[in-house]
Amino acid sequence: MKKPILPLFTLVILITGCRVISRDRDSVIVKQIFSEALTDTTSYRNLRHLCTKIGGRICGSPEAAEAVQWSKKLLEGMDLDTVYLQDCMVRHWVRGEDETVTVNPGSNNSFPLHACAIGGSVGTDKIGITAKVIEVKDFDELEKLGRDKIEGRIVFFNHPADPSHYYTFSAYGEVAAYRVSGAARAVRFGAIAVVVRSATLALDDNPHTGIMHYPDSGTKIPAVAIGTNDADKLSFFLKQDPELDLLIRLSCREYPETHSGNVIGEIRGSDRPEEVIAFGGHIDAWDNGQGAHDDGVGVIQTIEVLRIFRTLGIKPRHTLRVVVFMDEEVDQRGAKVYAENAIRDARYPVGDPRYRKHIAAVESDRGGFTPFGFSIDASQAQIEKIRKWKDLLLPYGIYMFDKGGSGVDIGGLKPLGIPLIALVTDSQRYFDYQHAATDTFDKVNRREMQLGSAAIAALVWMIDQKGF
Amino acid sequence: MKKPILPLFTLVILITGCRVISRDRDSVIVKQIFSEALTDTTSYRNLRHLCTKIGGRICGSPEAAEAVQWSKKLLEGMDLDTVYLQDCMVRHWVRGEDETVTVNPGSNNSFPLHACAIGGSVGTDKIGITAKVIEVKDFDELEKLGRDKIEGRIVFFNHPADPSHYYTFSAYGEVAAYRVSGAARAVRFGAIAVVVRSATLALDDNPHTGIMHYPDSGTKIPAVAIGTNDADKLSFFLKQDPELDLLIRLSCREYPETHSGNVIGEIRGSDRPEEVIAFGGHIDAWDNGQGAHDDGVGVIQTIEVLRIFRTLGIKPRHTLRVVVFMDEEVDQRGAKVYAENAIRDARYPVGDPRYRKHIAAVESDRGGFTPFGFSIDASQAQIEKIRKWKDLLLPYGIYMFDKGGSGVDIGGLKPLGIPLIALVTDSQRYFDYQHAATDTFDKVNRREMQLGSAAIAALVWMIDQKGF
Repeated sequence: MKKPILPLFTLVILITGCRVISRDRDSVIVKQIFSEALTDTTSYRNLRHLCTKIGGRICGSPEAAEAVQWSKKLLEGMDLDTVYLQDCMVRHWVRGEDETVTVNPGSNNSFPLHACAIGGSVGTDKIGITAKVIEVKDFDELEKLGRDKIEGRIVFFNHPADPSHYYTFSAYGEVAAYRVSGAARAVRFGAIAVVVRSATLALDDNPHTGIMHYPDSGTKIPAVAIGTNDADKLSFFLKQDPELDLLIRLSCREYPETHSGNVIGEIRGSDRPEEVIAFGGHIDAWDNGQGAHDDGVGVIQTIEVLRIFRTLGIKPRHTLRVVVFMDEEVDQRGAKVYAENAIRDARYPVGDPRYRKHIAAVESDRGGFTPFGFSIDASQAQIEKIRKWKDLLLPYGIYMFDKGGSGVDIGGLKPLGIPLIALVTDSQRYFDYQHAATDTFDKVNRREMQLGSAAIAALVWMIDQKGF
Repeated sequence: MKKPILPLFTLVILITGCRVISRDRDSVIVKQIFSEALTDTTSYRNLRHLCTKIGGRICGSPEAAEAVQWSKKLLEGMDLDTVYLQDCMVRHWVRGEDETVTVNPGSNNSFPLHACAIGGSVGTDKIGITAKVIEVKDFDELEKLGRDKIEGRIVFFNHPADPSHYYTFSAYGEVAAYRVSGAARAVRFGAIAVVVRSATLALDDNPHTGIMHYPDSGTKIPAVAIGTNDADKLSFFLKQDPELDLLIRLSCREYPETHSGNVIGEIRGSDRPEEVIAFGGHIDAWDNGQGAHDDGVGVIQTIEVLRIFRTLGIKPRHTLRVVVFMDEEVDQRGAKVYAENAIRDARYPVGDPRYRKHIAAVESDRGGFTPFGFSIDASQAQIEKIRKWKDLLLPYGIYMFDKGGSGVDIGGLKPLGIPLIALVTDSQRYFDYQHAATDTFDKVNRREMQLGSAAIAALVWMIDQKGF
């Protein structure tokens, strides 16, 4: 006997019903993920260890090496299927003890400024550099002043970050260039050093470091950052006395490159083990702080994703891979070697044991603040697919699914054509701490960080379910 | 000559064009509002004064009286059209110096707990109460134990807040009852005092106060809150020794009621001066901290709304009224007198000089954290109207326009049938500080608070434009 054909409306009800059931199941799992992340304190304790026991860990430092070993051991204790190192060479810049900036040195009205060497800067000799200062707001003003006004002087880049931006990364983006390229631009006009207003919206006494770059050839002049209050103060005193002297003394220097690497941990996919969903943060951090928000949190959150899957007993279809990236801050060597390997592995023939295909990558490097959503570097179709999951995440404050940049550590995977996704967090406090001595464990709120772990885990789970 | 009638499509284009122009103008003004709020530091400096120069200011205290005078003077300096006080009587509870809770008093293994009297509690005599402790998780357990197990003992309510909630107010809502009604419930079974685990998700040594209520008649027993770490510790020690002694000594007491009041400031509407858009926060705050997040911020943000309108030269059509509410924490006397007046004023005949009609009210009392949107107690039609403005505010992270409760201080306006709106902020950190000694100025991020001011100002501006 032939089966009777289902009337159309019955079919519609069945299909709709299945969708509802599937959606209900999805929201149950997402709830479990958030509940697990908010209830368990393992990740917070891990962050405490990384920040307070290891501390600042710029690439090449003994602390960075310790952090790599610690991350590897942590992953090895998590019942994963694979844990391994991926080697790379890194630069080795050392700050040293002395980073003195003094107004009117040796005089009665001498006073020090809160200062730190900018990362990668050359140092001075033990006597330091004493010279007159020329203040500029931007590169245009530098060019206009020209060699005549600049030669033999210290250039003071004093460009306040614009507080009217809602998203603080926009404000940072407008001023970071003075730190990165200030020395390179000023030396063309004969400057002998640069002092840069810290790239932050905070008005305080914390100088912020970060990387700078010299041209491939030519003179390298020292570069130092000062706190924003002191930038205002120096500017004020320069108006009173444009001929005041400034002393800069820095003991930083560059050592030969050393061995380091990324740490990788995996849960093997049950269905498509050769297809990889990668997620990570960077373990290196500036030496003056503890690298809590930048980016201890990113490392801890993405390791937490694996713990959540294991604890909830979720067996992923694809291989889940956490990548503890090395050297985001200085030269992105870890990111480069990771991308090279990922692109090479995708070129092996399917069936070759070395064949691996990434289907998505997620980065957390915007601090351990309350997550708002994701910035997605992908095709419109890929973005639309991810946006379909919005309702599942909205109850947890994850409302943003914008096309945008992802992150420095996964950016090199662009040739793979996969969605590259950054966790977007509340940006208001990020630049209060970034690259400053105040980027410490106590500035991280446990729950805000946990919500970020959960947001990534939920996204990874949806990608694993729906594929790409 | 008759004018030619415009073809329909031209009309459509014109109307659509006007809408686009109007929307563009709206987003320009909203941008100006956010830019002004984020750039100017007046409100942050006002908050610093209120917190660090005046400090904790529970109703009836000299600090509360000082804060009222300070608020009035602040408003009088803002070139407003009206500034006045609205009197009310308030309770006057004083904590006193002594709030001792000691485990095993007088023995070798004696140790103190971090404790504070719960607001409104009776004190003890100078010797204090020493008794055995019975720990309960909830009221059900209390009832089950009954008089037999409870009489003559101190009841220890140890119900941890549930961290799995995303929205921390939900977690707080589940445990606040032990603080508010614990003593009233326990005394029925002959308890002689209660110790309550602080209503917070933080695990630390900060006890959190807050109001409690006694029944109208019967014995009043002392009630004290302890920090969450100490609650775990006491629970642990009780498992070792269920017969351990606990000493409670409190010098708090209630004085006769005193005069106080709300402070009100207005910009008179150019078009409909008798129609009022009200917004405010509460100036009273628990005495143990500085009342920064709860609710110095709410007062400062809503005063800032008027400053923004004045500075940008926006002349409102309706009267804009800031209300600095007195006594949210203890007995909501300010809210009651405000509501009574508002309802009475709406009953005068239109045209009577005393006639005033509220068209909307907004409250800020969820801390100075990054704003997410609004919780709206209104009809579906009113909510839909407000939701139409969503796109204007989304660029500033204001994405939430949910039907929900508004706030204690404006709740009494419900009979007016107007939209009652609460600013919703990121709740993750709120209960770390609420009612604890740690609710201090330094816990407020300037930009997060400024964004809240801007969100309220933008909403008020839209309400003023579109009416209700």
